[in-house]
Amino acid sequence: MENNNLLMIPGPTPVPEKVLLAQTKHPIGHRSPEFSEIIGEINENLKWLHQTQQEVLTVTASGTGAMEAGIINFLSAGDRVIVASNGKFGERWADLAEAFGIKTDRVNITWGEVIDPEIIREKLEADTNKEIKAVIVTHSETSTGVLNDLETINRHVKNHGEALIIVDAVTSLGAVNLPIDEWGLDVVASGSQKGYMIPPGLGFIAVSEKAWQAYETSTLPKFYFDLGPYRKSATKNSTPFTPPINLMFGLQTALRMMREEGLENIFARHERNTRATREAVQALGLPLFAPDHAASRAVTAVAPTTVDPEKVRSVMKKQFDISLAGGQNELKGKIFRIGHLGFISERDVLTVISALEAVLAELGHESMKPGAGVAAATRVFAEL
Amino acid sequence: MENNNLLMIPGPTPVPEKVLLAQTKHPIGHRSPEFSEIIGEINENLKWLHQTQQEVLTVTASGTGAMEAGIINFLSAGDRVIVASNGKFGERWADLAEAFGIKTDRVNITWGEVIDPEIIREKLEADTNKEIKAVIVTHSETSTGVLNDLETINRHVKNHGEALIIVDAVTSLGAVNLPIDEWGLDVVASGSQKGYMIPPGLGFIAVSEKAWQAYETSTLPKFYFDLGPYRKSATKNSTPFTPPINLMFGLQTALRMMREEGLENIFARHERNTRATREAVQALGLPLFAPDHAASRAVTAVAPTTVDPEKVRSVMKKQFDISLAGGQNELKGKIFRIGHLGFISERDVLTVISALEAVLAELGHESMKPGAGVAAATRVFAEL
Repeated sequence: MENNNLLMIPGPTPVPEKVLLAQTKHPIGHRSPEFSEIIGEINENLKWLHQTQQEVLTVTASGTGAMEAGIINFLSAGDRVIVASNGKFGERWADLAEAFGIKTDRVNITWGEVIDPEIIREKLEADTNKEIKAVIVTHSETSTGVLNDLETINRHVKNHGEALIIVDAVTSLGAVNLPIDEWGLDVVASGSQKGYMIPPGLGFIAVSEKAWQAYETSTLPKFYFDLGPYRKSATKNSTPFTPPINLMFGLQTALRMMREEGLENIFARHERNTRATREAVQALGLPLFAPDHAASRAVTAVAPTTVDPEKVRSVMKKQFDISLAGGQNELKGKIFRIGHLGFISERDVLTVISALEAVLAELGHESMKPGAGVAAATRVFAEL
Repeated sequence: MENNNLLMIPGPTPVPEKVLLAQTKHPIGHRSPEFSEIIGEINENLKWLHQTQQEVLTVTASGTGAMEAGIINFLSAGDRVIVASNGKFGERWADLAEAFGIKTDRVNITWGEVIDPEIIREKLEADTNKEIKAVIVTHSETSTGVLNDLETINRHVKNHGEALIIVDAVTSLGAVNLPIDEWGLDVVASGSQKGYMIPPGLGFIAVSEKAWQAYETSTLPKFYFDLGPYRKSATKNSTPFTPPINLMFGLQTALRMMREEGLENIFARHERNTRATREAVQALGLPLFAPDHAASRAVTAVAPTTVDPEKVRSVMKKQFDISLAGGQNELKGKIFRIGHLGFISERDVLTVISALEAVLAELGHESMKPGAGVAAATRVFAEL
């Protein structure tokens, strides 16, 4: 059966029909008063979503572009930074910083484990000369399904006093509470094809006053990603370069839907779907890759030993047309990942779990009591 | 009457219904075989459109992002370049190059005039030490409606032997013949919301073998716009970062439409629409801003003296819901611009000209014979 895909990967995520349709409008001029009004509404709603009073800047780029902007605007070549890495994206930000001549102290934790905030604390406390200019952290590590303890890491950064905290919130923003102003996060980057419920193509960067001060002395070369002009334009409900008009139409609609649902409800839905997925996977006798206390709300990584994760994915796709993600880099063939980020309902979770039961039966996974997955998920939905 | 806008600015340009609808498909995984197939088809068609055998690389960014990639991948800080500038975009590329520490020799020609290839020739011939690493040229200067003589400038660059030619083809690609391989152009950058007939959000960069050699020694820092990984991914029908899936669905459809129409026909249509617009404007007693021999096929700039160009635009918008572009920077209030790039038909040109007659009558422009504009356009359509 064609045209019936259920997309349960950690991005791109499913897009509501309303948002898809909003994108079909004929483009209008990006310098027109009508479009300016749309930018104004979007910017207000982005502040609401980011729980910040600062401007949230929108760039036409993927999440990596947003992170690049979040790094190169506030640092200079030769600056020392700590990059806490426990997965593919942590490594990417270290590579990115090094490409720009930033001296990178990589705190490499085994993929799938949680970053121990103590390691960061020790490094920051040892830096009595205040040479560390930033700590770069991936909040939700998409490659492993681990949610790092950003709140504690940030507290240590605040005690250091000098360093900025630069956060990859690509798969955490809009999924888990991230009170930017309350915590005093300096730079928070994210991408549209995640919690925002729209297709890829837009990146977002929230910037604190402290980070804007660092911007003044940053000497890394930049033009397209120079956030100064974006800030200036944002105050005039404009953009320095042509924005992706039709994606912005979609964003406008998606943000309205999010406000309608409410932040608390969105976070609670992600919490419920995460817990249900995890309980169900365990009830089916499959090991979870990330520990309970650090479970990403975007994606659950499963590390089966009795069945080949790639076979789980291929049978799931072929028989039920459900797309799951595989392992990346060193985790290829070792895990599969169930995305439950953005426009994912409890119904979708029950669907993927019941299909997983069928796939596991088909693949001869024996330590499973049929129905146990759906029963566990149902229990979570009843309780939470 | 709502929802009835006719968009005649030089980008974003109108998008065919088919393309708008293609964008409404549910996103699929960007690492799936289905999407890989789409990338493969797109890349083949991009080569066709660019008249090149080289890979054409696609970045998620506006046209400025594509130009940044086209500059920073092939040069280093301290390199000398010539930037030929006769409008807003020429100036932007000089600013961009300087932001990256490139030594910029700005050849500034009065806005609205054509770049004299002789100036470039003299500078290149004087450079006997072969210190000039690139000549950066805006083919169709969107801000003034001037089409620069790229073929001649390129011949001088070829005679120099060392310098690369880097071309802003944002509003010329898909509008006027640009045989990249035949001319041996090194870097050609463009953007989706122009001749491609899709919304903004994608940038394209065609890169010659000679430019790839320069890439090897370029030391400018880059990550998101590092074209090396894009090239590697392109050969595997993939992308280094998440592409804007839904815009790619649109691009796939638009490129099919372009192949169906055929390059010759597309160029001929732009030529006819340009000539018809220009003849009509002159027949209405309004001065053209760009000379005939250098008329952009994307946009016609009009410099009225008897009426206020901003009033022309506002009455046009209010009474007929046709969007025209105004002058930018120093040309603000001095010109208005009629876009005829991409998905613009002869019918659209007749529409805007007849509406222009009505607007001019309303504004008391006296040196006009009613009907003369439409008659002139009709004559062009009958002849060409």
